[in-house]
Amino acid sequence: MKMDQLIGERFKERPADCVADSHAILIKGGYMKYVANGIYSQYLPLRRICRKIEQIIREEMDGIDGQEVQFPMALPAALWEESGRYETVGSELLRFTDRNQAGMVLGMTHEEAAVQLVKDYGRSYLRYPFMIYQLQTKFRDEARPRAGLIRTREFTMKDAYSFHTSMDDLEQYYRKCFDAYHRIFARAGISEVVAVASDSGMMGGNLSHEYMLLTPAGEDTIAMCGHCDYRANREAAESVVINQCHESKEVLTKVSTPNLHTIEAVCGFLGKEPDQACKAVVYQRNDSDSYVTVFIRGDLDVNETKLTNYLGTDIHGAVITEESGICPGFTGPVGFTGSSDVLYDNSLKGAAGLICGANETGYHYTGLDMERDIGKAKYPDLAKIIDGGICPCCNHKTIRLHRGIEVGNIFQLGTKYTEAMDMKFTEADGSIRFPFMGCYGIGIGRLAASVCEARHDENGPVWPITIAPWQVHICCLRADEQAVKACADNLYSQLVTAGVEVLYDDRKISAGSMFADADLLGIPIRIIISPRNLKQAAAEVTTRDKTIRKMAALDTIGAEVNDLIKALKELM
Amino acid sequence: MKMDQLIGERFKERPADCVADSHAILIKGGYMKYVANGIYSQYLPLRRICRKIEQIIREEMDGIDGQEVQFPMALPAALWEESGRYETVGSELLRFTDRNQAGMVLGMTHEEAAVQLVKDYGRSYLRYPFMIYQLQTKFRDEARPRAGLIRTREFTMKDAYSFHTSMDDLEQYYRKCFDAYHRIFARAGISEVVAVASDSGMMGGNLSHEYMLLTPAGEDTIAMCGHCDYRANREAAESVVINQCHESKEVLTKVSTPNLHTIEAVCGFLGKEPDQACKAVVYQRNDSDSYVTVFIRGDLDVNETKLTNYLGTDIHGAVITEESGICPGFTGPVGFTGSSDVLYDNSLKGAAGLICGANETGYHYTGLDMERDIGKAKYPDLAKIIDGGICPCCNHKTIRLHRGIEVGNIFQLGTKYTEAMDMKFTEADGSIRFPFMGCYGIGIGRLAASVCEARHDENGPVWPITIAPWQVHICCLRADEQAVKACADNLYSQLVTAGVEVLYDDRKISAGSMFADADLLGIPIRIIISPRNLKQAAAEVTTRDKTIRKMAALDTIGAEVNDLIKALKELM
Repeated sequence: MKMDQLIGERFKERPADCVADSHAILIKGGYMKYVANGIYSQYLPLRRICRKIEQIIREEMDGIDGQEVQFPMALPAALWEESGRYETVGSELLRFTDRNQAGMVLGMTHEEAAVQLVKDYGRSYLRYPFMIYQLQTKFRDEARPRAGLIRTREFTMKDAYSFHTSMDDLEQYYRKCFDAYHRIFARAGISEVVAVASDSGMMGGNLSHEYMLLTPAGEDTIAMCGHCDYRANREAAESVVINQCHESKEVLTKVSTPNLHTIEAVCGFLGKEPDQACKAVVYQRNDSDSYVTVFIRGDLDVNETKLTNYLGTDIHGAVITEESGICPGFTGPVGFTGSSDVLYDNSLKGAAGLICGANETGYHYTGLDMERDIGKAKYPDLAKIIDGGICPCCNHKTIRLHRGIEVGNIFQLGTKYTEAMDMKFTEADGSIRFPFMGCYGIGIGRLAASVCEARHDENGPVWPITIAPWQVHICCLRADEQAVKACADNLYSQLVTAGVEVLYDDRKISAGSMFADADLLGIPIRIIISPRNLKQAAAEVTTRDKTIRKMAALDTIGAEVNDLIKALKELM
Repeated sequence: MKMDQLIGERFKERPADCVADSHAILIKGGYMKYVANGIYSQYLPLRRICRKIEQIIREEMDGIDGQEVQFPMALPAALWEESGRYETVGSELLRFTDRNQAGMVLGMTHEEAAVQLVKDYGRSYLRYPFMIYQLQTKFRDEARPRAGLIRTREFTMKDAYSFHTSMDDLEQYYRKCFDAYHRIFARAGISEVVAVASDSGMMGGNLSHEYMLLTPAGEDTIAMCGHCDYRANREAAESVVINQCHESKEVLTKVSTPNLHTIEAVCGFLGKEPDQACKAVVYQRNDSDSYVTVFIRGDLDVNETKLTNYLGTDIHGAVITEESGICPGFTGPVGFTGSSDVLYDNSLKGAAGLICGANETGYHYTGLDMERDIGKAKYPDLAKIIDGGICPCCNHKTIRLHRGIEVGNIFQLGTKYTEAMDMKFTEADGSIRFPFMGCYGIGIGRLAASVCEARHDENGPVWPITIAPWQVHICCLRADEQAVKACADNLYSQLVTAGVEVLYDDRKISAGSMFADADLLGIPIRIIISPRNLKQAAAEVTTRDKTIRKMAALDTIGAEVNDLIKALKELM
């Protein structure tokens, strides 16, 4: 490819609205163009990167006996009604009616379609286990698209679905896929990706993992233990709290706390720390608008994912009406008469000597003793794990929070979908059972952006050789000098003939502009042909990561480049 | 790939609802599964076929300097409003509003997105010409999906868009693409595809061609001249009529024709041929429901595509009300007082001695002389060309009608989209102009089905080596005999190691069942390992098209298979 024919525009300035570096680079490097919120068109360089990622994924999926299939993106609503998700999934699922008034959805995940495809095939145990996967562009009407390709509304993903006759077999296969995922990320150039335990969300099922690239640009929060191997998405991480006995013989006493509306203000006024308070957080259920009041220790926050899972229904922050009987700012567990369900977070279990609201404007209690004043209650885990908190695995206070981008996920679905959709198989002993399913996703564009996020400098991306849009970038300085141009032309056709992927820049522009564009394209190997180099019958060969910079004789450069490509691949 | 692991089911019976052979084969051969009307999931064999077709297309598009890009499938309605198509395209365009109430469409063609992508890039004449293309799955809410993959609602297509500084340059590029298309179809195994002139339909623009595979399963009708090279889609074919002077001095006479409602009945009653009658066909405009009455010679039919283009608006067959003043069954051009626009087809120009309705129930006129009785009128071409009709090119009465599948199309769009969307470039002389566009489409699944339609026998498809799901099919007869199985296993791994694509069937089933499945998979080269062959240290090698059947010694079979693959490729 000749650089002067490469469609797309490259510019110096960082686009104003880009928070993530990868977003800025992909826009200003001519990789993609904004079309609508969370929706982009891709130019050739990004297309080539994505196709290489897809090929790596295909090879690894085929390597664990996957078979590529293709599901429709437009699916009949009836299929999603069978699984129950037509009702339970929110407005990120695009629902529409076709010209014959039939209900349809744009499938943003394909468990239902997978079951439909193999329901007949999988009637006998002899056919198990098997796995099918597809590469497909999906639309998901995200509430908050952000950071360029990191969270879009339209994205291409690999989604895979495995089927098994037992939970044991699913677990074995899950482990194989777990490893294949690590190979995929390593081959794409980000071997530092870590797997963390995750919340299964709308997918259902029990065990699931997310693959996280740790980076400040990430939108997920991961709790990692500095002492043991514990790692989990904050949404799923267990919050462990050990309460020391605070002045346990204190008497429950009502005190005047006029005009103090926040937990910090009340604690300050009464000379207590937030962890000596019991605060209330009020929600409403999405379906019925009924209230749910969560009491939790004052220094902690409610983990809404855990709360949603505990309640089995979606929730939102409450709008508190007078009729509710809830006294905002002064809500407490003693004498609470609000028309609301009440939950106590695990952090309050056994706690005493606490401040809490007195359910009366301007008043709090001191000396709350949960066991004495509340009596028997359940204490589910509803809190967010905190930085410096206790590791649920090794019990050391060594939890650190990190930001990360989720580049892939895997789920053990169990029989949720096969039961709902009545997919059955006959066992060897003649019994009829539901198969167990796993599902496994990777977003292609997000993976490309993640590699860019992890592998760039101030001038642009440093693409790994395995997914770089081209392998070699020839810069011909002073293409107006005939001998220089002839030499570069010759090298270009020589390398192309040898099967090397080359981008060739022979534009009559300054070296500075040429190198700036080359940096933005991030191609691993750069060859500079210039009048000065030519005098030595040589060219300068550098790598984009600046680890190699050397002169190569023109008559052996083809072989040298080939060796370098091989060496870079072996480093991956 | 082992046959006993290949997901999908194959069966003998032709599915009941399949009109086209390719539809029946793709269902019963385990290539795809029905999901909803015009929507299918694809199994691995079809996926492999489609990917090979995509690769052929990519190579040919890159060969004419195309650059692969990716447009979004979900596009903002605003983009389609700019071009005007948001209003003009019918309900096959899926419109929806996203969660923020923004209007969106699922792009079923991407002229608007193409202009949006290159609008900034294409500001200077120096950047022209250029072409971008994508491979994308699209949804188009077809009124009448049919014949399996031949007309679906969801389909993957290659769509390409070229940009030029002049009409001349567009025409030159159009010719290059015209040739590339012929190479694509030839490489995919159907070199017999013909290019025919077509109607540009909703795309706009002037010149366009469709690539047609002539087959009775096709849904298009193509007019071809037996004398010259003229070929056109019936929708676009000019209807040439030369009227002989019919008894031109006949007097206009009202005659009673009670209870005769069809043109055939009236002609029979009055002893005339249909080509001696002037019949009326009444339509209504879709937008306003206003009437349009077309008078046309009695033996011809109205070409609704021509009529739509002539009116510049969509139409439907009329529901005639009493208020309209139209007298159904007795409508004629003399004394017509209906509240309707009136058009006269070219077939009536200069005609005389005609029967026509008298606009009075139970009466017709005889002796109609168009020039004398109607006076000055336009006579646009609104008729369908007929089998045995006059060739608009060589004027011989040698037109024959054929059925065909449209496997691709190319359009000269001119400046329709660039003007509407205000895309401009600066010419060398400093003037500002709109670039000229061409667009070029091929449906991947439809092409696969067309090859199947053209290349099958009663047992299944005969896939060309270039797009076959695998190149070689090993059938191991009596895999229960250890020596036979070992020999087949060995050959399988030998061929796979040599880079041959092999499907290996070592199931313990009858030879009949094994060959039936092999026929359904249509793999070009079949190797049969059996106890009898093994005694001769040989295997039987046959081709699916039955042109080759020979014994190959086991110690040289690897090389022989490689030679055969090469030979089959060279035959393409």
